[in-house]
Formats: sequence, C-alpha cells, structure tokens
Amino acid sequence: MINRFISVLTGVLLISLNFNVTTAQAQSDNFSAEQLTQIEQIKKQALESDIAWNLVESLTTEVGPRFPGTPGDKAAVAWAITKFKAMGFDKVWTEPASFPKWLRYSESAAIVSPAPQPMHITALGNSISTPKEGLKAQVIEFETLAELEDSADNSAKGKIVYINYRMNRDRDGNGYGPAVEARSRGAVVAAQKGAVGYVMRSVSTAHHRFAHTGGSHYKEGVTKIVSSAISNADADQLHRLIALGKPVVININIQAESMGEGISQNVIAEFTGQENPEEHVLIGGHLDSWDLGTGALDDGAGVALTMAAAKLAISHGKPKRTIRVVLFAAEEFGLWGAKAYVKANKKSLSNIVAAAESDFGADRVWAFESNVHSSSLPLVRDIAAMMKSLDIEYIGKNSARGGPDLIPFREFKIPQFQLAQDGTDYFNYHHTADDTLDKIDPIKLRQNVAAYAVFTYMTANAKTRIRGKK
Amino acid sequence: MINRFISVLTGVLLISLNFNVTTAQAQSDNFSAEQLTQIEQIKKQALESDIAWNLVESLTTEVGPRFPGTPGDKAAVAWAITKFKAMGFDKVWTEPASFPKWLRYSESAAIVSPAPQPMHITALGNSISTPKEGLKAQVIEFETLAELEDSADNSAKGKIVYINYRMNRDRDGNGYGPAVEARSRGAVVAAQKGAVGYVMRSVSTAHHRFAHTGGSHYKEGVTKIVSSAISNADADQLHRLIALGKPVVININIQAESMGEGISQNVIAEFTGQENPEEHVLIGGHLDSWDLGTGALDDGAGVALTMAAAKLAISHGKPKRTIRVVLFAAEEFGLWGAKAYVKANKKSLSNIVAAAESDFGADRVWAFESNVHSSSLPLVRDIAAMMKSLDIEYIGKNSARGGPDLIPFREFKIPQFQLAQDGTDYFNYHHTADDTLDKIDPIKLRQNVAAYAVFTYMTANAKTRIRGKK
Repeated sequence: MINRFISVLTGVLLISLNFNVTTAQAQSDNFSAEQLTQIEQIKKQALESDIAWNLVESLTTEVGPRFPGTPGDKAAVAWAITKFKAMGFDKVWTEPASFPKWLRYSESAAIVSPAPQPMHITALGNSISTPKEGLKAQVIEFETLAELEDSADNSAKGKIVYINYRMNRDRDGNGYGPAVEARSRGAVVAAQKGAVGYVMRSVSTAHHRFAHTGGSHYKEGVTKIVSSAISNADADQLHRLIALGKPVVININIQAESMGEGISQNVIAEFTGQENPEEHVLIGGHLDSWDLGTGALDDGAGVALTMAAAKLAISHGKPKRTIRVVLFAAEEFGLWGAKAYVKANKKSLSNIVAAAESDFGADRVWAFESNVHSSSLPLVRDIAAMMKSLDIEYIGKNSARGGPDLIPFREFKIPQFQLAQDGTDYFNYHHTADDTLDKIDPIKLRQNVAAYAVFTYMTANAKTRIRGKK
Repeated sequence: MINRFISVLTGVLLISLNFNVTTAQAQSDNFSAEQLTQIEQIKKQALESDIAWNLVESLTTEVGPRFPGTPGDKAAVAWAITKFKAMGFDKVWTEPASFPKWLRYSESAAIVSPAPQPMHITALGNSISTPKEGLKAQVIEFETLAELEDSADNSAKGKIVYINYRMNRDRDGNGYGPAVEARSRGAVVAAQKGAVGYVMRSVSTAHHRFAHTGGSHYKEGVTKIVSSAISNADADQLHRLIALGKPVVININIQAESMGEGISQNVIAEFTGQENPEEHVLIGGHLDSWDLGTGALDDGAGVALTMAAAKLAISHGKPKRTIRVVLFAAEEFGLWGAKAYVKANKKSLSNIVAAAESDFGADRVWAFESNVHSSSLPLVRDIAAMMKSLDIEYIGKNSARGGPDLIPFREFKIPQFQLAQDGTDYFNYHHTADDTLDKIDPIKLRQNVAAYAVFTYMTANAKTRIRGKK
C-alpha cells in the first residue's frame, strides 16, 4: 500500500511534467500539428491507463510461471491469443519455435560439515541431475572464473568448485556480463579442472536468500557435472566457513532432466497499416519465463507494456504503417523464439522500420537511443523530443542494442531502438522465485507504456520511414 | 559493501556524537566523577568494538540454525560455554529446560487449479503433518480471524481456511500482536468451523517471497488440522485468484513431527560482584532460533550484544554487583528456558537489581524505559542521561516490558528495563530463511552494545541498588 501511495504521487508528477513541452513540438517535418496533438494525448492517456497493469496482473496470476515445455507455457500462448483478440488487433497468429526442453524437478543443498545447515540453491538451466541421494564432496573456492581457468590442471580434482564472484550493481546492468560468464561456462571449466560438481554465487545484487537461476552450457567432450547457484546469503556463509580453514563438505541434490526438442509458439499480433501495410514497427517482449517465479519483471512487464502501447498508439485511428507486437517464445533458454522468427520472416525483415524489445524489468525508462541510418536521425530527434516530458534522456550515440530477442536481427541491420529502463534493482529479483507481481510499480509501468506508445505512434506514422544502417 | 560503507559513516557520526554530553554528567549522587569518566570510555570503546559482530558472525556461521532439539541447539550450547570462558567470565554454567520437541521435515504447496503454480509455504510450529501425498482441498478466504470466528458453524466444512490479514509495519512492532493471533489460534478456529486445513498470510511486513514460521497451538477436544503460512507474494496471488470467482484448489504437503519432551540448556555466565555479589544485573537474549534461517536477528544479535556489553562493562575492573548474562533456551517454542530459569532461581530473583533482554533484531536502540520503584527513578534518569549521546530517548512512563523471556519474571516485580530497538524492518525477516547475518548492520550493532554496556555498568556499580515496584 505504501508503494502504491508513493506511486500515485510519482504519477501525479509525471502527469504534470507531461504538459511542459507540447508547444515546443508544434513544428516538425515528419508530423502534422494534428498528429503532434494526438501524440500528447496518447502520452497523457498512457500515464493514466492501467491496461498494462491489468495485463501483467492477469498473466502472472492466471497463468503464473511460463517455462518452455510446461503447461504454463501453453497456457501463456492461449492467454496471449485471447488478449490480443479482445484488444481488437487486426491479425493474431502464432509461429512455432523449437527449443531444447529441460525440466527442473527438485533442488536442495546443505553444508554437511563442519557446521551442518541447509543452503538455498537452484539448478542452472540445462544442468544434469546429481545421484538421487545427492552429490557430497569437499568444496574448493575460487574468486573468479578466470582464477579457476588459470589454476593448475586437476586443481579441483574430486571436489565441488565454488566461485565466489559477486555481481556489481549498475543502472544499465553492466555488472551482468562479467558475472554471467561463470554461469554460462563455469561447469565446463570446473570439469576440465577435475571437479565433480559446480556451484557459484548467484548472479545477483540482492540482499535476500534467493538463488538465481539462468542458462548454462556443457561442451562436447567435457564431462557434464551438476551446475548450480546459491543465494548471496548462502554464498557469504560458505565463503566464511571455507575461510576458517577446515575442509568444508557440502551435499547438492538436484533432480532435473533434458528431454530433447520441445515446441513453443511466438505469438504475433498486428494493427494493419493503412498506407504502407508491409512496412512495420516491431515491439514486444518474451512470453516465457523461468519456472521459479511468476516472471513479472522478466518479462511479464515487457509483454504487457508493449501490448498496451500498441493499443494506445492507435487510439486516434489506424496507423500509416503496421504495428506488430511479437511475444517471443523460449527466450530464457537461448533466444529460440527470436531465432525462429528471423528464420520464418527473413523476407520481411527489411520492412521493419523500427524495432524495440522491453526485457529489463519494469522500472522507469530513463534514456532513449537509436541505431539507424544517419538520414533518419532528424526523425529520431523528433521522437526524443516527445519523450522529454517523460523524463527520458536522448542518447545521441546512435548505437542502441534493442533487447536480447533482437540479437538475431542484428545482422540484417534493421533500425533498432533502446528505451532504456533503470536496472538498478533488476538483478535483485532476476531469475528468482521472488520475481512476482508485487515488484512492479504500476505508475512506473505507465511511464514505460507512455514511452513505447509515443515511440510506436511516431515510427508508424512519420511521413518518411526510418532506415537502418547500411 | 555499500551497507558497510554507510555503516562506517554512521559510526563516525555516532562516535562524534559521543563526546557532547560528558561534562553534563560530571555531577551525580550515584556515581563518582571517575566512574562517569569510565562510562564515557566504555561507550567510546563499544562504538569502536567488533566483539559483538565477531560473536554473532561466529554463532550464525559455525553453528547456524539452533532449533531446540536439533544438533544445532546442542552445538550452540557448547559454543556459548566456550565463548563465555574465552571471554574471561568468572562463572559459566548451564541449567536444563524441557520443552515440547517438534521437528519440521519438509514443506511445499501449490495452487492446483485454476492456475497451477507453486506456493512458498512454511509449517507453523507444532503443526501436524498432512498425508504423504499432501492435503488437497478448495480454499475459503477470510479477511481476519474475527471474521472466521463470526462465521456460521460449518462455514469452512471440508475446505482449507485461508486468512488474508496483513500485518502493519510499525517501529515498535505494534502490528505484531493483532497479526499473531491468527497464527497462534487460527488452526483451532478453522477446525471448529469444519476446515480440513489452515493456511494464513505470513505475519510479515516483507515484500519478498519468504513464508514466516512461528508458534501455533492446538486445543484439547478440537480436531488438529495442518497449520501453515504462505509468503506475502503468494498470499497476494491466492487472494487475486479467489477474487476471480472460480473455486481455487490448493495442495499443502507438510511433514513434521511432535516427539514428546526435549531437553535444552540455559547457558549462564557471570562477572562476580566485588561488594554485593548476590545482587545482580541480568541481561541476555535467547540462544535458540527457528530452523529456517540462521537466527541472526532473532536472536543471535541479542546473544552477541549482551555478551559483548557485559565484557565491556568490566573493562575498568570488576563490578560492585554481579553481572549475569543469561542465554535462554527454547524461547521460540514458548519461553521454556525462561520458565525453567524462574523456577530454578526463584530464591534469588529478589536479588535482581535490573533486567533487560535484547530480542528485537539489531537495529539501533532509539528509546530507554524503566519499570522500577519510584525511589529508583533518579538513578534511571542518570542512566538515560548517559545514553543521550547515543541518540536514545528517555521514555518516562516507567512501564517498560523487558523482552519476551522476562515475561515469566513479571510476577516477581523485578526491576525491568527496555532498550527499545527500531523494529521498522524487523518483521521483514522475522522467522524466515532470510534471517541471516547480512541483515545485521555492524555499526548499529555497536550502538546497541554501547547502550547495554552503559546500562550494565551503571546498574551494577551505582551507589544504591535499584528496586522493583512493590
């Protein structure tokens, strides 16, 4: 309730900010005065609208976790189709995406000696199981993956490798990359050093006792060993016990299974353009989530706010170009939906005039950046000008990366955009059981919707189309 | 690290505050000028000392959870004896306390329909088990225990009762009492209304997905049903699903066991008084903890800070009266250690000149209050004056309650004191797996030690003894 109250105050501030810039926008080569008025109206509407909140509440409550290959994933696809239709999208369809199916059954761990106590652990995606009774071995600690790599052959022989590296907190999530390498490759390097198991400090900025899951990989020819992460609190504990100098023995019990290929669906919907229907703006998020939480921040928010933005962008009539919302399948397990999309839609990728994915939580958008042909920069600046009243900075570097699901699009040089969210707190919750609806601030969500609605309207209705770098 | 940094800043502030009041204290009927100087020195020493931090780090790391009747409980008793001896206490001994032994083996829950998803649940202390495959039934929601009590006979027939009441946040923990009734009695009232199971929103102020355990009771002649609590995030979810109007079916699987009488030990240590050894100051905390976390806030902090305060209080020599530190056994399950203490020490209770228990986390002490005979109030005001530089208010109502383990002492009208901690965040962690060492701010812990050290020195060394209300 306190959160809600603060949110309402923030909302009032945002709404009042909203009226400062209108007149400054009355001139533009790309938009008529009437269009500029409509954009302001849409912005205002978005800042007062709970469309996105209602969508993400429904998705996380009525569907819940949406892990690829589970009934929740199927239910999410059905949910998206139903919602798109109810919202009046002109076309709604699905496209299949295959992915390597892996399921988590159970996970637990404990310090066996010298001080018996449970640990909060999670299997990293793709991990093999331990024996039914668990894997019991002494732990050997390394500060970083690099330190493990630099260690002698057989440095970890017969032991469970533990990597103690702690992720740095950063608004832009720049701490994630350096930390995530140990998640992705740790079990392989540990096995190469003779380890029988692998556990790492979670990729996390949290001060809470949740283990963070995430993708991990094995390598052909290297023995597969169990791959897992413990919460920061348990990592601190393990580190302290090891520092005392006595051998520390732990037991990891993870039951999980790789089950070959699974099939999920990208869910796609369009408001069809009236003048240039083949040209389209592509926005969206990913529909799947990890299994531990309900995927509110990752990526229920991105799904909901782009659906809502598309709807608001047509509140004054159908667009000049098509507005397409893509809810990607199986992102968490390796961008499988995005890869399938690019493959299935190769011919029409050159018709994308603007693409942006929201997949970084639900905090406010603080920056806007393009990645387009220089001839399109005046239009980009028009959009940035209309976002200013939302307290969004324009980053003029023109080198935006448009969200993880747009990575497979990059080689096609489509115009990509980043509506950068504040990620300071994102990795407190990311890939944990604690990623639940209460972590979304409804008013900040509205600001996201407003930003995306402005972006969508303007890229879909501008006189000239945006072009990608060539 | 950020926490540590802020803490160091806070510490500098506290330390600098420390020197403001010294001269104002140069006059007192109860203390010589030399003693007043010593008090200031002890305070300064405490604000720079990590004795308490090192103790609580050791207890929560090397012992971990200390649930009565587990190996951790035994290890804690051995730990306390060893530490007291190493700290140079003159006498160290144990006194047995029996308690009703109950152990938690496993706990899980899920929403079965309409939207299958796991829930984070915990058994309330004393709960019976469900069948091995769990207890599956439709849920019926009540807003409060009172609403359940007021409902018709058989209102919950064949269902699992869910109580949605949310605890209020409050510096003094005043939200706890109203919320805890549903924990203590909920399963009885639910059974009386025909329910087959009981689950409540955790007694919690947290925005995290931890279930909070705590004591619960059955009643002779009323059918025992499973008694449990879910996290706030899961409670929100369950409430939303029920509000949608379709029947909501859940499965609760709790395996636990009541095992008759267990025996634990109060661990007691003294610095013997030089002039009036039979008169004694009694400070302490409870050595046991719940099984889910490592009991850092509840009550590792209380244990550590009172041990440290006693040690600091004698840094200028042995006290006039005895300083006794009591680490109570089996508090969480019904003050069993405290009851045993009062029974075993009935003859000497009248020799207690001051008693205070620390059992409300590790946030800073913000207030000091007595509960003594009016003739002792001038001395109380002397103590309060010495605490002022620690930013501690004096509450003049003279009706302090001295901590849960002092409840059994009340009828003996001993002089009780409250060094009231800020409890705003305490119920974010209380009785959860998230009650771990990282939740303690080392600098705030020092301020607690300083307050207790001042209190202990002054009550042990004052010219006149403090007397209780008669």
